[in-house]
This record gives sequence, C-alpha cells and structure tokens, in this order.
Amino acid sequence: MSSLPEPVRQLSAALGQLPGIGPRSADRLALHLVQADPLVVQHLAQAILDGRARTVTCSLCGALAEASPCPICTDDRRDRSLLCVVERVLDVLSLEKSGTYRGLYHVLGGKLSPLNGVGPEDLRIAELQQRLKDGTIREIILALGSDVEGDATSAYLAKVVTASERRVSRLAQGLPAGSGLEFADELTLTRALEGRRDVH
Amino acid sequence: MSSLPEPVRQLSAALGQLPGIGPRSADRLALHLVQADPLVVQHLAQAILDGRARTVTCSLCGALAEASPCPICTDDRRDRSLLCVVERVLDVLSLEKSGTYRGLYHVLGGKLSPLNGVGPEDLRIAELQQRLKDGTIREIILALGSDVEGDATSAYLAKVVTASERRVSRLAQGLPAGSGLEFADELTLTRALEGRRDVH
Repeated sequence: MSSLPEPVRQLSAALGQLPGIGPRSADRLALHLVQADPLVVQHLAQAILDGRARTVTCSLCGALAEASPCPICTDDRRDRSLLCVVERVLDVLSLEKSGTYRGLYHVLGGKLSPLNGVGPEDLRIAELQQRLKDGTIREIILALGSDVEGDATSAYLAKVVTASERRVSRLAQGLPAGSGLEFADELTLTRALEGRRDVH
Repeated sequence: MSSLPEPVRQLSAALGQLPGIGPRSADRLALHLVQADPLVVQHLAQAILDGRARTVTCSLCGALAEASPCPICTDDRRDRSLLCVVERVLDVLSLEKSGTYRGLYHVLGGKLSPLNGVGPEDLRIAELQQRLKDGTIREIILALGSDVEGDATSAYLAKVVTASERRVSRLAQGLPAGSGLEFADELTLTRALEGRRDVH
C-alpha cells in the first residue's frame, strides 16, 4: 500500500517472504507488530534468532533437533531395524504424533521433481544408502506423499534400496479414517479397492 | 507437536500469538525459519525490531507514521475542513489507495462493543472532540464498517459530533462495484434500494 510508513513497508516485505503469507497478510501482520507491546515484539524477534541458532539438522536422519544426532536417532528403546523414509521434517512430526511408529527415520528433504530441477543428487539418498550399509536395517517404509512426484520418488527409492534380505514397503492408500465414500475421489477409491484387505 | 525441538516450539508459540496465524501455520513458519538462510532470518528479526522502534502513532489522527504529526496531518494540500473517521489504521491505507479522498483522518482504534467491554472511553473519541473545537472542520464522514457494531458506533458518534454548522455523513451502502445482484445478501439489497439515487 502506498502510504505505509517505510519501516512498516520493509517489515511487510520481509514477512511476505515467508511461506503461506501473501501481501495482504504481510501488511496486516506488519501493522499488528508495529503497534504491539514492545516486549512482545522483542520476544518474537529473539525467538526467531534463537530458533535459528539453536536448531541443527541431525547428521543421521536429517530431522531438526537441538543436537546431532537427534533424540530419536540416539533413543535405545526404538526399533533400529526399521527405517521410515519421509519427504520433510514436518512428516516426522506427523508420524510421531500418531504414536504408532517406533523405528528410525530418514528425511529426504524433498521428492524427485525433474520439472523443478530436483534430481536424486539433491535429496539425501546417498546418506540413505550409507545408513543401509551395515545391514542393521531390515525393513524400509517409504512414507512419501501419494501424488505423482511422491509415487515416482517411491519407485526410484524402491529400486535403490532393495536388497535380498530386506523388506521394502509403502504406506497404504485408501479412504481417510472417518470419511465416507462420497468424499473420496475416483483415484482414491480405485486404490482403496486395489488395496482391500480380507476381513478374516 | 510433541517432538518439536524446544527452540522451534518456543518460536512456534510466539508466532501463534500473531493475528490470523493458527497452531499449524505457526509450526510450519517456525520450521521454515529454523531451516532458512541465517542472513534472511537475521534480516527478518531486525525488520521486526526496526518496524516497532521506528513507527509512532500520530498524536493528531492516530494513524501510524515515522513521525508525529504524520505526513497526512501536515500536508497543506489536503482539505483541512474535511475529516474522515475510521476504525483502524488499515482503513486509512484502504482509503488512501482508492485515491479519491483528500481530507484528513481520525482513527478511532476500534468500534463500540459492549459485549467485549469496549466503551466510548476506550476509543479516541475525546481526541476527536478536541480536534473539532477550533471549528476548522466543516464535514465529518463516518467511514465505519456496516456491521452491527459499526452501525452502533456511527450512531453514537453522529450524536457526539453534531453541530449546527457542520455536515455529518456516512459511507453509502449498496452493491459492491462489479458485482451482480445474485451475489448480494438481502440486507445489502435492502440498503441498496433505500439508498437508490436518481439517474437524472
């Protein structure tokens, strides 16, 4: 907007760089911040700096933590024969929240996307192969998205990590829990049918 | 999420205090920031601090600016007999963007809302009365929202600022520009009919 004071405009521009924040949200947030309690503003700026400074990427799994290796990688109670491969750090959190998985993780950092110039060398695939070398891992679960790029990445990884003594699986596709057939698209229903399981 | 590292959780909590940022957006933004280029992060934190430190509220109109009184209040080319009363700082920007208004502004800082405990003493109404004292202002345009609270505030202000030699008006209500009748609700249509204007 033309008549925003210069510091507000600069703040709005910086906020507009964040994912999911459009120009109007950025203006609204900037106006909120420049009118907010200075202590709250100071706290936010400090939290941003602290967050960046105190967070590292785990050298083993690629997840975020305060130390590397991360608490999950060093947790002796977890099943070290099971490795779950995910796209992003956020996916580790989603799976941890579900509370059913007790193995280790490997964050790829994205998915193969030739159109966007993302090839195998841009993902943490070499690190994955390195982790598989000592033979501890007996099963790999490919927990990637079910879109075209996720499918392609899963197919590529399945070829790369396959070994005679190791199981490689993918997450099931089908109806979301608690949802009816009328909300499912054709592809989801096709996959739910293909993946049907015997009741007995 | 349970397994977010502590600094990320703290950052997410701070971001979640901002308007329009829910818990999931806050997590996503926090994860983005702790993985972003440290220079970009530093720039954002600095922009937040600068924005707050370098922005003041204009003592006359209540809008935001780098100095008080603000450039609008001190602009000699503007019509000093015309005062537009708005709810929030953002409204000044919207009106300035439209480019048709050349008078002065007065930001109330909200609207009357007894349910939320906002009474006349919480708004900049005393300051408004003070500004009217010297008799320069010949017309007041009440540019408040057309919801129930905006209507109540307009009615209250109309009583407070009315003087024999002064015109008090409200923004017209009716169809939004470029929209058809089929998109307008009943109340909007009623007000558009009530406010109809002669073509000749």
